[in-house]
Amino acid sequence: MRDIVIIGHKAKTNGDFSLNDLPGSAGRMDILCRCVSSALFLSFGMRRDVNVHLLLLGDPDPGKIVRFEGLHLRYLNPDERSSGSLINKALLKEVTEHDVRSTPGVWIRRGNLKSLLSEFEGRALLYLREDGEEIRELAREIRDPVFILGDHTGVTEEEEAQLLEAGAKIISVGPISLHSNHCITLIHNELDRAESERGESPGKVNCGDEE
Amino acid sequence: MRDIVIIGHKAKTNGDFSLNDLPGSAGRMDILCRCVSSALFLSFGMRRDVNVHLLLLGDPDPGKIVRFEGLHLRYLNPDERSSGSLINKALLKEVTEHDVRSTPGVWIRRGNLKSLLSEFEGRALLYLREDGEEIRELAREIRDPVFILGDHTGVTEEEEAQLLEAGAKIISVGPISLHSNHCITLIHNELDRAESERGESPGKVNCGDEE
Repeated sequence: MRDIVIIGHKAKTNGDFSLNDLPGSAGRMDILCRCVSSALFLSFGMRRDVNVHLLLLGDPDPGKIVRFEGLHLRYLNPDERSSGSLINKALLKEVTEHDVRSTPGVWIRRGNLKSLLSEFEGRALLYLREDGEEIRELAREIRDPVFILGDHTGVTEEEEAQLLEAGAKIISVGPISLHSNHCITLIHNELDRAESERGESPGKVNCGDEE
Repeated sequence: MRDIVIIGHKAKTNGDFSLNDLPGSAGRMDILCRCVSSALFLSFGMRRDVNVHLLLLGDPDPGKIVRFEGLHLRYLNPDERSSGSLINKALLKEVTEHDVRSTPGVWIRRGNLKSLLSEFEGRALLYLREDGEEIRELAREIRDPVFILGDHTGVTEEEEAQLLEAGAKIISVGPISLHSNHCITLIHNELDRAESERGESPGKVNCGDEE
């Protein structure tokens, strides 16, 4: 399983935004939409072994987590508006500390970075920063990873401290600073290559139960 | 310089489409919009050494080429709607065999794959197909490349024959089939790494004249 966390510091936390203006009225929700698409789409189908966790920290009700589960996901197309629409639907739900299902494969609950990280105990946390360790040196050893990425504002000092305290390793995907969705594509490619070398089938779940 | 050609077999060839429905009414224009964004954006700025050529082959007037020049480009944001809007503006122009400038860094003219390829004579043509030669084996030798990618329908037999006749090499970016915009991100990363190893500055033009 690959889990990918993206922190949206400005991302709107109610459903009161226009799909025609994801960058503006929705608080750079376009960034998160592109991340969802990069994380989940293969050319002919979906990465069923991936979960995406969008940590929404913008106004008016910061601290909501929308989760896309590749295994159960339906009604998602690769365009930004499609993921924006599913996020919007999730934000229209009554939200508590417990998961509420919005559409198939999309869940929402209250939470923050700390509560989210506590769910990944025992897993390999990998936090992306330009000066991190080169992913190509590590890819073959990575198993069952959780990747954490910031948005256009990066990751705050406080968040970074929480990540390091939780045992996250800092990694990098190349010589120049890239958008988060591009980083996700590069991460997947490294892991796909490593899995393929091991004779596994990248993008598929291991249980053989895929629809 | 890196040139990237994307063939949009269904992409609408007049400006009569809605930015609210890039996948539908605009003939999967969303694919081309994501390619433009992947080709041109760095985290903090634009790849000034990249040109993108969108070959639009859909109704009602197939055979138009919209070119984005990284060096001169303005008014482009990374979201799909932004590139969709610049493509739309270009398609509202009176189009001839000769370049017409639409907005800064965006040009449009009539053309087809053959006329486009003839402009790249002497350059290294690299055509992406799943079973091609591994880009990692080649990246260090690639100079001044032109990459050619299909859309969701791939590349037709006729187009492939034209590409091979023009001397294109077939390359691949990994073990599984990916969306065109994801392939572009992977191509850039390979070339960025190779340029960085050579002590060059990826994403920058060599003339030192960048704004």
